[in-house]
Amino acid sequence: MTKVFIGGAGMVRFGKYDASVTFEKLATGAAKAALKDSGVSRKDIEAVYVGHVFGGPVAGQRVSTELGLAGLPVSNHENYCASGATALREAWTAIKAGLYDIVLVIGAEKMTDRVKGGVTPDPNDLDAAQGYVMTAGHAMSARRYMHDYGATRDQIAAVAVKNHAHSQHNPFAQYQHAVSLEEVLNARKIADPLGLLDCSPISDGAAAAIVCSDRGMVRLGINGVRPEVKAIGLVSGTLRSGHYDVNEEDISRRAGLQAYKLASIDPSDIDLVEMHDCFTIAEIVRMEGLGLVPKGEGAAWTAAGKTSIGGELPVNPSGGLLSRGHPVGATGMAQVCELYWQLTAQAGSRQVQDARLGLAYCKGGTVSGTDGASVTTVVMQS
Amino acid sequence: MTKVFIGGAGMVRFGKYDASVTFEKLATGAAKAALKDSGVSRKDIEAVYVGHVFGGPVAGQRVSTELGLAGLPVSNHENYCASGATALREAWTAIKAGLYDIVLVIGAEKMTDRVKGGVTPDPNDLDAAQGYVMTAGHAMSARRYMHDYGATRDQIAAVAVKNHAHSQHNPFAQYQHAVSLEEVLNARKIADPLGLLDCSPISDGAAAAIVCSDRGMVRLGINGVRPEVKAIGLVSGTLRSGHYDVNEEDISRRAGLQAYKLASIDPSDIDLVEMHDCFTIAEIVRMEGLGLVPKGEGAAWTAAGKTSIGGELPVNPSGGLLSRGHPVGATGMAQVCELYWQLTAQAGSRQVQDARLGLAYCKGGTVSGTDGASVTTVVMQS
Repeated sequence: MTKVFIGGAGMVRFGKYDASVTFEKLATGAAKAALKDSGVSRKDIEAVYVGHVFGGPVAGQRVSTELGLAGLPVSNHENYCASGATALREAWTAIKAGLYDIVLVIGAEKMTDRVKGGVTPDPNDLDAAQGYVMTAGHAMSARRYMHDYGATRDQIAAVAVKNHAHSQHNPFAQYQHAVSLEEVLNARKIADPLGLLDCSPISDGAAAAIVCSDRGMVRLGINGVRPEVKAIGLVSGTLRSGHYDVNEEDISRRAGLQAYKLASIDPSDIDLVEMHDCFTIAEIVRMEGLGLVPKGEGAAWTAAGKTSIGGELPVNPSGGLLSRGHPVGATGMAQVCELYWQLTAQAGSRQVQDARLGLAYCKGGTVSGTDGASVTTVVMQS
Repeated sequence: MTKVFIGGAGMVRFGKYDASVTFEKLATGAAKAALKDSGVSRKDIEAVYVGHVFGGPVAGQRVSTELGLAGLPVSNHENYCASGATALREAWTAIKAGLYDIVLVIGAEKMTDRVKGGVTPDPNDLDAAQGYVMTAGHAMSARRYMHDYGATRDQIAAVAVKNHAHSQHNPFAQYQHAVSLEEVLNARKIADPLGLLDCSPISDGAAAAIVCSDRGMVRLGINGVRPEVKAIGLVSGTLRSGHYDVNEEDISRRAGLQAYKLASIDPSDIDLVEMHDCFTIAEIVRMEGLGLVPKGEGAAWTAAGKTSIGGELPVNPSGGLLSRGHPVGATGMAQVCELYWQLTAQAGSRQVQDARLGLAYCKGGTVSGTDGASVTTVVMQS
């Protein structure tokens, strides 16, 4: 079976950009960085996969034209916050099917132009119409978690402290400063008990990778270790179809099992995780759902430093969504960039020692709403 | 190599529906029809691929939840008017890669809720900003074609007459009545020489198919002939990067060559074509671009009945976009439904005799604009 590798990766710094920095500018910036990193020239690229939510129709075609890649197969893929990872999954699948050897995958989003305030739920989402919006759902998740497992507010806030500490060392992060526990606890309340620093920001940004078959790697003469994309899981789910435990995370459990099986790995071998921490509490319950942290112990693990760089299982060395930022369609590919840098020992002062096996997790949509969510799980190994 | 088949297909009638007929209702209606046609039960479906443009984030997840398919891998794919075909291409690729044996593919669009008047171009499209909108582009194409090849206005109008004649026999068509040459010529002018009946309408609708590997067909116990999806080409292009001949159709030429090569077929063996006739002239120049009609002869071929059912190479037995209707994300899958019915001799009084090899063509975006377009070419054989 064809193996699939990340031949190079690149990002533009996440943040809030003015109108002159368009979706196309962000996306092409990331793509050019990935091309440069890999040493791949445009003529070697056989197809372009673009993940985004708000870029508008045929945004990927506009980007490809700007890049001088007009003519190639170009496609756009949307799974809300898992859009970038879904684009990568389609590329990975096409290489597995033997269609291509060398492709470009881009995740991009210009949110500040299109999203005012927060992301609004779908007009048909009945839960949201009754006030059960995303922040309310995660606040309820935090309250329930504290009640069920005796976790403290400080322990949950520790996720934000950790991820900001990590992204001080990430030149592509939206926030590159530390925050104290007190700052997290005293931040403006959004949905009790969660405050502003428990929530990922509205961000602009893009991330890209050159994805190659083993044959493509040889053709390009890429030397040195490159991480293999062992598997990309994709599952969906909604609480509507089951019993209602807001922290059950059945969708994460299934997404994990699918990835571990597809990749033929023992999850206990995973060295680091890039996790979809759209809210502090989300990092905790999703790590538990994946079976990577014992149920009910995630908050305590975080406060004890077990998920920090240097701990037992570092989570979000990049800073995660909370501090690297969260331009929704770009996030999945930013996670892949981070795994690539970590697994090739290029992560500088945020390097996880002896990182060999990494997992990146995205969730798009809301499992508690009427939409149904999708979760992607990317397993990469060097 | 794994072979991929259409195990069943279904549509809802295209048309203009009121607000009570939602995107989800259209999409689930088509999916249920495809499930029923194939005899496949929900528990056999392994993944869901949804193509749409205006359905909003995670529309496919909402549809899957409604269908009782929550839990499966679900993904959304956008390539403007080629979105449905792009979703099919990802499904076809995943089956080729060995990921799945039985999947559901849906193309759907509720346009009348979202699009008022015509489809508006992207705000960054500089050509459109100067008045070179889609209708103007196709009008220019028609004028140039008449000038270069001595074609007449009547011959171009004959495309609309033919496609309306065909769709009288299509129970899923938006228009099921004939139109005369006089009616086409005397219709309200949209962009000279093109009138209202030279333009495809704004439509709502959905179309779906059950897509299976050879192993999946055996598992389901599907008997009888089912058409194989031999190949699905995808290319992009923009006139910005080349010389400027509005009827050059280099993108169609490349899309055709890619499909013929992938499918290992001789294009002269093609028995029928479902063509993206968003405008009358577009059917003519795209058939020529594909190399299926000699350059400059498409208009004359049409007027002579060569592209009618019963002619040398029937084009759009379904009625095409002009008369079956054009809910953009649904169109590619509606074409696949028509090829499925034709290749299994289920097309009733619009049946193309001895149909064995069919091609379906979609173009998404505008090659003349700054976007760049993408073309899909689906080859199916019974």
